[in-house]
Amino acid sequence: METNDVKLLGRCASPYVNRVQIALNMKSINYEYLEENLGSKSSLLLNANPVNKKVPVLIHGHKSVSESLVIVQYIDEVWTNGPCLIPSDPLDRAEARFWADYIDHKWFPLTAEFKLTQGEGRKVVVKERIIEGLVLLEEVFVKCSKGKDYFGGDSIGYLDIVLGSFLGWLTAIEMTSDVQLLDITKTPDLVEWSNRFSLNDVVRNVVPETEKGWIKL
Amino acid sequence: METNDVKLLGRCASPYVNRVQIALNMKSINYEYLEENLGSKSSLLLNANPVNKKVPVLIHGHKSVSESLVIVQYIDEVWTNGPCLIPSDPLDRAEARFWADYIDHKWFPLTAEFKLTQGEGRKVVVKERIIEGLVLLEEVFVKCSKGKDYFGGDSIGYLDIVLGSFLGWLTAIEMTSDVQLLDITKTPDLVEWSNRFSLNDVVRNVVPETEKGWIKL
Repeated sequence: METNDVKLLGRCASPYVNRVQIALNMKSINYEYLEENLGSKSSLLLNANPVNKKVPVLIHGHKSVSESLVIVQYIDEVWTNGPCLIPSDPLDRAEARFWADYIDHKWFPLTAEFKLTQGEGRKVVVKERIIEGLVLLEEVFVKCSKGKDYFGGDSIGYLDIVLGSFLGWLTAIEMTSDVQLLDITKTPDLVEWSNRFSLNDVVRNVVPETEKGWIKL
Repeated sequence: METNDVKLLGRCASPYVNRVQIALNMKSINYEYLEENLGSKSSLLLNANPVNKKVPVLIHGHKSVSESLVIVQYIDEVWTNGPCLIPSDPLDRAEARFWADYIDHKWFPLTAEFKLTQGEGRKVVVKERIIEGLVLLEEVFVKCSKGKDYFGGDSIGYLDIVLGSFLGWLTAIEMTSDVQLLDITKTPDLVEWSNRFSLNDVVRNVVPETEKGWIKL
């Protein structure tokens, strides 16, 4: 398969697209990135993902794959000669999938709820729930990383990608709402991990930096 | 690993628990089934799944796995000498995961919306969306089964389990609301598949039959 057979339909500042970019970088796969205009979606996108009509879509040869976590697993299973993203042990795999589901369907929606919630008192309640989730994820990090740098151990793995893709949004919320979510006093390991992750070569220039104004909340 | 090292914490009439039962049956795994009382959850459940506190939970030796689709994948990856539930080709696997996500997060919630929706006109709109989803899933069935009996080909696979576990609920809605959702004129292949699936030895006595009053909507 030629490297130019890989295209990614994406949207700058989408954490879901960032996941695929990081996974492709981890496997050292050259790909063509095609920015989508969500106000006027390309026929390529509409044909490749007629059900959801959403990015990211990975086009590999004449086939397309949609949904960020499905794509990340596909990349891991097709390009097996790069570092493994999903753990090899079935129980570790199950844990990674469980926590990915928790992050996407339970923890991350709290950040949207925080943005929408009106009233200082109610906002504090949601903020505390976000932080409780991060404390839980800190425990997961300690367990999975076994003293190493990443959820994936020595190198970035599935859970690093799933949670790490949201770091830009977390920073954006912290800046626009003047709150501290990733707090060194509550989740010291996760704070260190987030710095390490963001500076990793496969992540730099992928997850948007709020200072540059890529993310507008 | 002794067969009596496998326990399933479940709840009769939960389609998510049924998924795990079918997967275990497909792999001919003996297991101990422990019915949970959701009004008074066991300490076994609360310790094994402290995050969600929900069934199903598979306890395998001293380890536990939660979330139905995570468990089904775990079973497939641990007991590799039975029939494969997830397809072996990466693209087929991606398709199966994409449609499982569609069924759980887009299609099935429509059935809850249908139950909650008031007003005949609005109910008809939701009903049509449920049927549109089934028409889409009929196309998926035709593509995946390649003329064979199941989404998984010759035998029950991942998507059969994901969609098939909801057949009892679908029938219950049809009976209590006097509507036709799985319709031979609109989704003939899916109707035939549903009969075949429900009568399969690994499914019989697992997915509740509404006639017996197992499901009360």
